[in-house]
Amino acid sequence: MKDLTQTSETNGGTGHLLHSRAAAAGDVGLSHLTQMMADFASARDWEKFHSPRNLLLALVGEVGELSEIFQWKGEVPRGLPDWSVEEKEHLGEELSDVLLYLVRLADICDVNLGEAVLGKLKKNAVKYPIERCKGSSNKYTVYKESEIERNSENHEV
Amino acid sequence: MKDLTQTSETNGGTGHLLHSRAAAAGDVGLSHLTQMMADFASARDWEKFHSPRNLLLALVGEVGELSEIFQWKGEVPRGLPDWSVEEKEHLGEELSDVLLYLVRLADICDVNLGEAVLGKLKKNAVKYPIERCKGSSNKYTVYKESEIERNSENHEV
Amino acid sequence: MKDLTQTSETNGGTGHLLHSRAAAAGDVGLSHLTQMMADFASARDWEKFHSPRNLLLALVGEVGELSEIFQWKGEVPRGLPDWSVEEKEHLGEELSDVLLYLVRLADICDVNLGEAVLGKLKKNAVKYPIERCKGSSNKYTVYKESEIERNSENHEV
Amino acid sequence: MKDLTQTSETNGGTGHLLHSRAAAAGDVGLSHLTQMMADFASARDWEKFHSPRNLLLALVGEVGELSEIFQWKGEVPRGLPDWSVEEKEHLGEELSDVLLYLVRLADICDVNLGEAVLGKLKKNAVKYPIERCKGSSNKYTVYKESEIERNSENHEV
Repeated sequence: MKDLTQTSETNGGTGHLLHSRAAAAGDVGLSHLTQMMADFASARDWEKFHSPRNLLLALVGEVGELSEIFQWKGEVPRGLPDWSVEEKEHLGEELSDVLLYLVRLADICDVNLGEAVLGKLKKNAVKYPIERCKGSSNKYTVYKESEIERNSENHEV
Repeated sequence: MKDLTQTSETNGGTGHLLHSRAAAAGDVGLSHLTQMMADFASARDWEKFHSPRNLLLALVGEVGELSEIFQWKGEVPRGLPDWSVEEKEHLGEELSDVLLYLVRLADICDVNLGEAVLGKLKKNAVKYPIERCKGSSNKYTVYKESEIERNSENHEV
Repeated sequence: MKDLTQTSETNGGTGHLLHSRAAAAGDVGLSHLTQMMADFASARDWEKFHSPRNLLLALVGEVGELSEIFQWKGEVPRGLPDWSVEEKEHLGEELSDVLLYLVRLADICDVNLGEAVLGKLKKNAVKYPIERCKGSSNKYTVYKESEIERNSENHEV
Repeated sequence: MKDLTQTSETNGGTGHLLHSRAAAAGDVGLSHLTQMMADFASARDWEKFHSPRNLLLALVGEVGELSEIFQWKGEVPRGLPDWSVEEKEHLGEELSDVLLYLVRLADICDVNLGEAVLGKLKKNAVKYPIERCKGSSNKYTVYKESEIERNSENHEV
């Protein structure tokens, strides 16, 4: 990942996109996961269950399970220093379940998630210029007040 | 995780594990996205906002926006053949927003999402044996009724 | 509930508000539920767990469980004619769990949910005039295109 | 609401159920809201959009908007003392949107939400006996370890 860290981010956070679209060796890729999920479903004859809205609701179910892990804890510090190994494994599993349904949903909707996410990162870099956003949690609408977006997916990342 | 690559799973939907842990050239990797999100936040001094539960709620917000896309449509067929280019782009963006917060949440929680997701796929393959699950949407509890799991994240993938 | 059905809806859907704020005898009221939840938590010394964001995440968890009920079913007809008694009871319980956390969250946030919901119904009636919205699932922005709302909670009810 | 406060809670939190099912005068009732939503939809010819899963996804969308309100705030104290009037109004509206879709979803699924929620409160009182649960956020499974529930909706309220 050295190439990543060497890339300057000061030009808007899209520096990586210019010369580093390929995942590094050992990195787990979205297309790879997509294919694994497709094979998994196919081998079990589960394709008939994997309609877009079925998968979306399954995703919502997993987000619910992820939320349950955090629900009675109050705010928790980064890195979760006080969590047991079992708790962190459980968390890893719930995060994975969300990811797997997300990847599968994209595939079933004929969306190339890898392309989409790189495009979204690029768009976010334009939407939230470093020099204007620094240290603020305001929506980008505060920075570009005269612009009206067609949809409301305008929260910073 | 070497055992994964050595395990033959060609009849279990995890055949890819045999020879392809590394993302193919051009595939977008989870570690790559994790690094890009870290750089993006760091450049904007947004790390202070990226606590585990803040990110979790942001993820829930994005899942809400994803759901809004599908909410009045009734069931939609795979591949979304009747959707406009703009609708599919919007969908790709919302899927991406969920993914980006998920990746960031895992990172802030010190969870290696790539390792976790490969482990979960392996676990799922054991949990849902092909010969028993074929064509059924039953929970795996139906297949292993005598076993009580400590947690309820037991829905098929 | 005869008084309700006798109320003309043609003046924008707020007719009820004019003369029927009181729940009918036998109706389960929001303030009543709020008080029961407060008593329930107090008796168990659970108030310390009931912070706003803890309750919000618990609500998300319950919405996840609600979604799981519907996740593999494809579209289901109104009235759920093919569901077993047990399935409908389970559904009633999950709907109730969402409601109870919602009521509790409002209370802990010092929001009078009864007042808020009557106000929102009134606002919706103005936002979606009968004569313009009839039969369309468009957002209200389609009807009032020149108006920019400060927030995006603009989907029809 | 005097009748409520006079009811002893020491017998397990279900004291209210014994003699106070009717909402007090001025309380906003669930049946009342259900009827208002039905009239609202009917007047706009929106019944065709109000299928169970459409409404469920709309509910998820509103939960997302509710979450967005809290997403960058870190933990917030009860009563939200530092929130502006506008912020609290916005919160009241989002809570209301969730409630309205919930009430409508129950109606379309032919579930009597009022009956269901009173039944669930009673069940919760049995599930979480005061003397054993006091001050603990454990799941009820900790209290009744030998019992296996058919579903996982077992988190405390």
